[in-house]
Amino acid sequence: MIYELYYWPGIQGRGEFVRLALEQAGAEYRDIALVPEEEGGGVAALVKFLDGADVAHPPFAPPFLKAGRMLIGQTANILLYLGPRLGLVPRDQSGRVWTHQLQLTLADFVVEIHDTHHPIGGGLYYEQQKPQAKRRSRDFLAHRLPKFLGYFERVLERNPDSDEWMVGRELSYADLSLAQVLAGLRYAFPRASREALRACPRLRALHDAVFALPRIRRYVASGRRLAFNKHDIFRRYPELDG
Amino acid sequence: MIYELYYWPGIQGRGEFVRLALEQAGAEYRDIALVPEEEGGGVAALVKFLDGADVAHPPFAPPFLKAGRMLIGQTANILLYLGPRLGLVPRDQSGRVWTHQLQLTLADFVVEIHDTHHPIGGGLYYEQQKPQAKRRSRDFLAHRLPKFLGYFERVLERNPDSDEWMVGRELSYADLSLAQVLAGLRYAFPRASREALRACPRLRALHDAVFALPRIRRYVASGRRLAFNKHDIFRRYPELDG
Repeated sequence: MIYELYYWPGIQGRGEFVRLALEQAGAEYRDIALVPEEEGGGVAALVKFLDGADVAHPPFAPPFLKAGRMLIGQTANILLYLGPRLGLVPRDQSGRVWTHQLQLTLADFVVEIHDTHHPIGGGLYYEQQKPQAKRRSRDFLAHRLPKFLGYFERVLERNPDSDEWMVGRELSYADLSLAQVLAGLRYAFPRASREALRACPRLRALHDAVFALPRIRRYVASGRRLAFNKHDIFRRYPELDG
Repeated sequence: MIYELYYWPGIQGRGEFVRLALEQAGAEYRDIALVPEEEGGGVAALVKFLDGADVAHPPFAPPFLKAGRMLIGQTANILLYLGPRLGLVPRDQSGRVWTHQLQLTLADFVVEIHDTHHPIGGGLYYEQQKPQAKRRSRDFLAHRLPKFLGYFERVLERNPDSDEWMVGRELSYADLSLAQVLAGLRYAFPRASREALRACPRLRALHDAVFALPRIRRYVASGRRLAFNKHDIFRRYPELDG
């Protein structure tokens, strides 16, 4: 099956969590964000599914995945579906439920990271909410960042089956997503995340291990992985970095 | 199996989405929030799982569910697990994936509703972020509320198998959660939600149908369902109501 991934062009965004899983599994997929509009890709292709009156299961927002006749929205839901098919989740139910739980906690973390620069409204510009962004970032860096990082460090520490990954013996999609969040934090908050990650040797090792995986390295080197930028979830505004 | 539900005492919160499913299914469960600390309930019982050094799969936050030897966190993940066991989700994979997708979209909606009164930080008091809450609420009521409600109205409209429920022929856990969100919105934003729901006859009908279900009525009348209040996700601050 050739999967089709739909996401906004020009940013990694939440689409990147799905891309990393597809890439690591060596899955065949079309990244519709990279397909020109003239060839049926880009924003026009998204809008057809978001606004089309004949879509039975309309997604609320990208990313969404076309898998045969199924149309699947919500990042964590896409990964829940792909996990067993891509070999990125344990076989046993307990391991699968736990991996999904970790992914949902990462999703919560991502919302809070995003809202550091958009505390008042996602439809407004950053420039329209700078003082509020500063206050929210201060709170985030003081309380939420160490809480989330400490949590995932503990999860790694308590996995009896691996010194490297969060669930069972093997790499899971949640490990890929966690590495992506860490990369994003280092981009957005270089100072504060260096500080916070001092206490988290396992997280630092996981980040490096994921980005050293041959297929992930090849993907990063391919040019298909976009650079972090200021239209994305993770944004580098030095004034917010503690 | 007797399930054990762990959540903060004194509020409905995210625990209520799980309670409604358990109640509607007539499942046996212990609501640990209602058990006194002396009898092993309350906050102390929560903390044992949140902070205990011997918990293999620690939840990041309540609610979490003990189901035999499994400990399951994240509201949507709990419902994903319970759905088939409680008969609150279709049998086919496509219906299950779709129900979970709707639940995750409701979870996103709930975060945005909560953040109307806490745009700067969940650890601060409302009184420390009142002007920001006002601005965020204005943006929420103008843009996000109609967008989310319009989305779920459309989902109901497009379900070919039912005039009442979102997925397939039967009630699902996502319908219960949607009714709870609507009840919460009516409590928090009586004026703005009345206005916004004018265009959403299917949502109004779904709300009424859920709260007319005999088991849900019995639950509401039992005294075990707490009232909405100002420590919860949905809060009535008249100054935020448009």
